[in-house]
Amino acid sequence: MKFSILTTLPQMFESFLTTSIMARAIKQGLIRIDVIDIRNYSLSKHKNTDDYPYGGGAGMLMMPQPAADAIKAARGDNESIPVYYMSPKGDLFTQKMAVSMACEKEIILLCGHYEGLDQRVIDKYVTREISVGDYILTGGELPAMMVTDCVSRLIPCVLGSDESTIDESFSDSLLEYPQYTRPRVFEGMNVPDVLLSGNHAQIRAWKKEQSLLITREKRPDLLKTKKAEEEEHCGDT
Amino acid sequence: MKFSILTTLPQMFESFLTTSIMARAIKQGLIRIDVIDIRNYSLSKHKNTDDYPYGGGAGMLMMPQPAADAIKAARGDNESIPVYYMSPKGDLFTQKMAVSMACEKEIILLCGHYEGLDQRVIDKYVTREISVGDYILTGGELPAMMVTDCVSRLIPCVLGSDESTIDESFSDSLLEYPQYTRPRVFEGMNVPDVLLSGNHAQIRAWKKEQSLLITREKRPDLLKTKKAEEEEHCGDT
Repeated sequence: MKFSILTTLPQMFESFLTTSIMARAIKQGLIRIDVIDIRNYSLSKHKNTDDYPYGGGAGMLMMPQPAADAIKAARGDNESIPVYYMSPKGDLFTQKMAVSMACEKEIILLCGHYEGLDQRVIDKYVTREISVGDYILTGGELPAMMVTDCVSRLIPCVLGSDESTIDESFSDSLLEYPQYTRPRVFEGMNVPDVLLSGNHAQIRAWKKEQSLLITREKRPDLLKTKKAEEEEHCGDT
Repeated sequence: MKFSILTTLPQMFESFLTTSIMARAIKQGLIRIDVIDIRNYSLSKHKNTDDYPYGGGAGMLMMPQPAADAIKAARGDNESIPVYYMSPKGDLFTQKMAVSMACEKEIILLCGHYEGLDQRVIDKYVTREISVGDYILTGGELPAMMVTDCVSRLIPCVLGSDESTIDESFSDSLLEYPQYTRPRVFEGMNVPDVLLSGNHAQIRAWKKEQSLLITREKRPDLLKTKKAEEEEHCGDT
């Protein structure tokens, strides 16, 4: 799978691309990540990409031309490649959306500065605006990394055997049960007896019960959407 | 304001700390970010921080001792410094939460691997578990960067005059109106006439109307919480 990330801050991606699971997946040829500097597409003398908004207001906006030209270059001949614009106005990014993206061969992630992007680029070139949450960030770079991380780990073989995607929060729309590792007693606190029992049926039942309890307490909204999500699969979307 | 970030992947923060607004704010002494390697607190021979979960299941867990000792070291004598654990099981991070964090002098952000952290560390040392959204990531590093970015930009003087926090999505629980910059006509698409009118009252009314329209269409849930949020302020929390 190929990710093209369009940004005015390409240097912000260096550590992300050279660390941990991303670096390994790129090296193994499982994913390809092209970070493209929007500035390279600016036709202005000083390679500007920002300008003042019409109608006044605080902040600078991304100019339409450099962003549009960067998208066209990343798409090449293939206009069906989806373009996701990282934006606080977008649809909330979810695990379900990540699963659907992981079915694509190629996606383009456009990072705006959160002061904004000229609306005409969004209207003409953006497939979907995506927000990673209800908070304001300096730019779309960290959200683009999150989407890339989240989608990549769903691609077969990207995760090692120690890093399975099973049993995690949201994989089945429930939050994960509490987990414990050695030692049995840590600062006076014990591991729950059931986990030491060796009785696998009992352990499974306990985990399921804990997941339900925690989800009901912390995020009852997830239980409501659980059933609907179970009926959808990759490929239907 | 000081951020202590506890992680097993400190190298992942390099680009974040040396780019853009963060680098400038650190240089100006407005914020301080200490990235602390949890591995340095491991007492095991090979500086391990992971172990297998009790009761079986996929993945490795963060051991309690190195994480707990890293927290103690970051806190020093001051046990009132809040510890936020980046976790998919946490409370959803919001702009309101960021505003409340920006009132603190110092916070600790603990990055887990999303396979999990021994529950006893959470029970004893964590003030609040925070989730940046309903999706699964490789670790808490990107979420910690997002929280740091979001909170930092609320600190006075961190943003320049071109980067005001006013007029943005969520600042008033509404999504932002569409924005436009030069040229007036881009690929056959015009800037809305009202923004070129010079009539400031009319422009303000249009922006407000567009914000309401977009929020009602895309995120009606935000309108419901708008009133409640307006009644809360920094310092009350």
